[in-house]
Amino acid sequence: MSSVVQNLVDSNKEYAANFTQGSLALPPAKNMPLVLTCMDARIDPAAAFGISLGDAHVIRNAGGNARDALRSLIISQQLLGTQEVLLLKHTGCGMLTFGNEEAHSLVKQNLGESAEEEIAGLDFLPFGDLEQAVRDDVEWLKARKAIADSVKLSGWVYEVETGKVRSVV
Amino acid sequence: MSSVVQNLVDSNKEYAANFTQGSLALPPAKNMPLVLTCMDARIDPAAAFGISLGDAHVIRNAGGNARDALRSLIISQQLLGTQEVLLLKHTGCGMLTFGNEEAHSLVKQNLGESAEEEIAGLDFLPFGDLEQAVRDDVEWLKARKAIADSVKLSGWVYEVETGKVRSVV
Repeated sequence: MSSVVQNLVDSNKEYAANFTQGSLALPPAKNMPLVLTCMDARIDPAAAFGISLGDAHVIRNAGGNARDALRSLIISQQLLGTQEVLLLKHTGCGMLTFGNEEAHSLVKQNLGESAEEEIAGLDFLPFGDLEQAVRDDVEWLKARKAIADSVKLSGWVYEVETGKVRSVV
Repeated sequence: MSSVVQNLVDSNKEYAANFTQGSLALPPAKNMPLVLTCMDARIDPAAAFGISLGDAHVIRNAGGNARDALRSLIISQQLLGTQEVLLLKHTGCGMLTFGNEEAHSLVKQNLGESAEEEIAGLDFLPFGDLEQAVRDDVEWLKARKAIADSVKLSGWVYEVETGKVRSVV
């Protein structure tokens, strides 16, 4: 085990020693939205929104991408009763800094031709305009038949510089 | 805006008012592992591992599934320097409670035939055995050419009953 993982495990021992919420129900709290956001290290959704343990599903991937999250969104909705989705992208996102071609070139250069062949055609889902990407993802979700029309959808930007969220759509 | 989202936005105003970490770098802290875990509401990865803001990428999806996370994992590794992945599934996971056929039936029953056609063939990636699913995902990642052999991989279980993590592989 690396020393940094050992540190995390040690921190977890402290967390568990003070843990008192071992009887929370599996489904999220009634009426709480699912939060779909980016994997970026500068975002802590629970802290930024004051979400208590057990209250809300949180999906995170590179860019806070809706297409990438569809499987999880359907499960949250159909099996666990989620009726609202808060989609949150953020300023300074890495997905604004590269294109598909560059990402594929990097894989080929760093890991070889066979690595690139393994992921041929993979869409890394980068985007060029933050607010537009939020609008596009919300539109895409609205158009999905496998997401009920009754599910409320809203799109937001989180500012890593200020800690603030602002509404986009 | 629903009243519950209004509450989250109000909480965010407090968070932003006390926010002092507006200058964190985009890449995660050197040597910190990426945490890949489930969307389950009962998991707070930052709290459970004592991860500070800006330190680690966090990917979350239904089940903490590695296949589903591949796009994000490659981006984290190739563009942002991540060299270690901590894969964390958990006790009481919803993914242990249903199968693909049931999920597809639910979509058809609740949203109609055209919704089911839209996601025909979608693998919801449920699993039947928790520890085995952790081992399978780590094996699958190890076999990926698009994940460098140098990336350290470990598999863990988080106990929602105790707040503890335990090593699987």
